[in-house]
Amino acid sequence: MSSLSSLFGVEHPIIQAPMAGAQGAELAIAVCNAGGLGSLPCALLSPDQIRAEIEAIRRSTSKPFNLNFFCHTAPKPDYDGEATWIAKLAPYRDELGIAEATVKGGRAPFDEASCMIVEALQPPVVSFHFGLPEPHLLDRVKRTGARVISSATSAAEARWLDAQGVDAIIAQGVEAGGHRGMFVETDIANQVGTFALIPAIADAVKVPVIAAGGIGDARTINAAFTLGASAVQIGTAYLLCPESKISPLYRAALKRADGHDTVLTNVFTGRPARGIANRATRELGPISSIAPAFPNATNAMLPLRIRAEAQGSSDFTPLWSGQSPRFAREAPAGELTRDFARAVGR
Amino acid sequence: MSSLSSLFGVEHPIIQAPMAGAQGAELAIAVCNAGGLGSLPCALLSPDQIRAEIEAIRRSTSKPFNLNFFCHTAPKPDYDGEATWIAKLAPYRDELGIAEATVKGGRAPFDEASCMIVEALQPPVVSFHFGLPEPHLLDRVKRTGARVISSATSAAEARWLDAQGVDAIIAQGVEAGGHRGMFVETDIANQVGTFALIPAIADAVKVPVIAAGGIGDARTINAAFTLGASAVQIGTAYLLCPESKISPLYRAALKRADGHDTVLTNVFTGRPARGIANRATRELGPISSIAPAFPNATNAMLPLRIRAEAQGSSDFTPLWSGQSPRFAREAPAGELTRDFARAVGR
Repeated sequence: MSSLSSLFGVEHPIIQAPMAGAQGAELAIAVCNAGGLGSLPCALLSPDQIRAEIEAIRRSTSKPFNLNFFCHTAPKPDYDGEATWIAKLAPYRDELGIAEATVKGGRAPFDEASCMIVEALQPPVVSFHFGLPEPHLLDRVKRTGARVISSATSAAEARWLDAQGVDAIIAQGVEAGGHRGMFVETDIANQVGTFALIPAIADAVKVPVIAAGGIGDARTINAAFTLGASAVQIGTAYLLCPESKISPLYRAALKRADGHDTVLTNVFTGRPARGIANRATRELGPISSIAPAFPNATNAMLPLRIRAEAQGSSDFTPLWSGQSPRFAREAPAGELTRDFARAVGR
Repeated sequence: MSSLSSLFGVEHPIIQAPMAGAQGAELAIAVCNAGGLGSLPCALLSPDQIRAEIEAIRRSTSKPFNLNFFCHTAPKPDYDGEATWIAKLAPYRDELGIAEATVKGGRAPFDEASCMIVEALQPPVVSFHFGLPEPHLLDRVKRTGARVISSATSAAEARWLDAQGVDAIIAQGVEAGGHRGMFVETDIANQVGTFALIPAIADAVKVPVIAAGGIGDARTINAAFTLGASAVQIGTAYLLCPESKISPLYRAALKRADGHDTVLTNVFTGRPARGIANRATRELGPISSIAPAFPNATNAMLPLRIRAEAQGSSDFTPLWSGQSPRFAREAPAGELTRDFARAVGR
C-alpha cells in the first residue's frame, strides 16, 4: 500500500477524476468498491443534489470517496462583454432558430453552503480545482478531518498549495481533459506536459504527487510512478463506462477521437479546458479573446448546445477529453479500476 | 543492448539531439565516445562545413554518428509578406539604430549537394526533420547503407514515415525544444505531450520508437522506456556542457529558466519551435500570423538579434529549450551520457 493509499484509506493509489456533467454517484461507487478513490464532482450540483448524491454513495459503499469543488472567484458583472459574446453568437441562433439568447448555466464556486455540507456529511477527501477556497472556509474543511487536495499546473502553483497545507497535489499535465486547474499561471502557451510536470512538482514539494493527464493503461500508470508520482488520477479512460452519464453524441465523438483531435478551448465556459475539437472550437476559438470570464461564457453557449443536441449534433457541445481518448473502454468502471490496480508496480 | 542500440551500432540507446546553431562536431564526438549516438546538425552549415565537421568527427572517434538535415520545401517568394514583416520590425530597428532591414539567414533543406555528401562520406545514421526528402533523394541515402530516422508529432505522421521505410521514428512530444517536426499536422493547438505521444506512436508502427521531449534524468529516461520507447533523444540537457557552443547570454537564460518559461513560437524562423520566452516572443508572438514562411522570417529578425546580442541582450535571440531546462548540467557531455546510460533499465 503506497503512502497515498494509506493517506486516503483506499486499497489502490488510483483516483477517478471528478468530471462535472459526465458522472455522478454511480461511477464513484463503482470505483470505490473496486478499491480506488471514486470522486463526486459538485460544480454543477445544487446543495440538495450534493446531499442526495453523497447519501447514494454511502448507501452503496463503505469505502472512502472524494468530493470535488471548483473554487474560482465569481467574476464581476461585465454587461458589455457579455453583450459582445451574445452578439457574436447571433448567427448561430438564427441558423438554429433560437429565440432566447442565454440560458443560465455555469458552475458554482465552493461557498458557505458547500462548506456546511462538508461539515455535516464529512466526506473523507475533498479536492479543489482552480486553487483553494478562502482561508476561513479551507480551515473549516480541514477541521472536519477531510484530506484536502488540489491541482497544480506548474511548480509555482504546487509550492503555493504546499504552503497552504494540502495533503497531496495533483500534477495536471497539459494532456489532461477538462478545465486546466491554473490559478497562478495565466497563459496556456506556457502550460507544461505531464512528462515534464510530474518530476518538476515532485522535486518542488514535500507532499505526495498525484499524476494526471494522459493516463489510462499499464504503461502510463507505471510511467507516472517512475516520474515521481505516488498516485494517478484517471478521467477520460472512464468516460465510456456504463456508469458514465455522457450522451450518445459525446460517446460517439470520443470513440472516433485520437489524441490529435483535442484542443484547449475557452469558448464553452470562459476558462481553458481540453476537449475534442468541434464546430464551436473551430469557428469561435479554440481560444476566444471575447469569451466572458468563467463561468459566464456558458450562458450564451447553452441555448446553442441544447438546440443542436436536440437536432442530433455535437457542434456546440463541450466534448471534454484528454489527449489519450483511445484508452477509454466500454467496460464497467470496477473492471477498469481493477485493471489499473494490477498495472501498479507491474 | 537494446534493438535500437544494435540498429545504430552504439553501446547505449541514447541519442544526442541535433541542435543547429548550438553545437558542432565537438559535442557529437563526446557523446559518441561515451557510447551514445552523437549528432551533427547540418541545417546551418555549407557543404564544405559539413565535410569539415564529419572529418573532425572521424578524426576523434571511430564510433557511429548521426548526420541531421531539415527537409522542408523552400517557400515560394512572397515579397508582400516579407515587406509586411520587415515593416512590423521597423520600430525595433529604429530603437537599436540598425540601417539594413535584412541579413540573409535561414536554414537550407536537404538537396542534391547534401545527398552527394552523404553518398561520399557515408554517415552511419541520417536523421531528417519536417518529414523526409523527395523519394529519389531518400532512395539514394538508403542505398549508402545509412540508417534513416525522422520525427513524428502524431500517430498519423508516424504511420506515414513507417510506410516510407524509415528504420526508427522519433516521437517528438510537445515538451521538446527547438523546431516542431510537424509535416502532416499544421496546428500547434493539437500538438500532443510526450506522455500521450510515445504510447500512441508505439501502438501505431512496427519500427522502434525514439522518445524526445522533456527527457534528461534517470526518471524521465526510464519513464520513456516504460511508455514504449526503445531509445531516448536528449537535447536541452546537453546545452550547458562545455562542448555546447551557445553564447553566454543563452547560457544565462537557460540557467534561470524553468519549465514554464518556454513557449512555441514562430517569430524567429516562421515555423513553430520551443524556446524560452523573451521580448521577441512576447511582443511579436509567441505565434505571429504575419511571420513569413519558414525559414524566411529569419532574415528580418537576424539584424535585430545581431545588434541586440552585441549590446548584451538576448531580447531577439532564439533561446531554444524544451520544458525541462533544469535537467541541463554544466558537466562534460561524456559524463552526462554515461549518467544517462546508467539510468537505462535501472
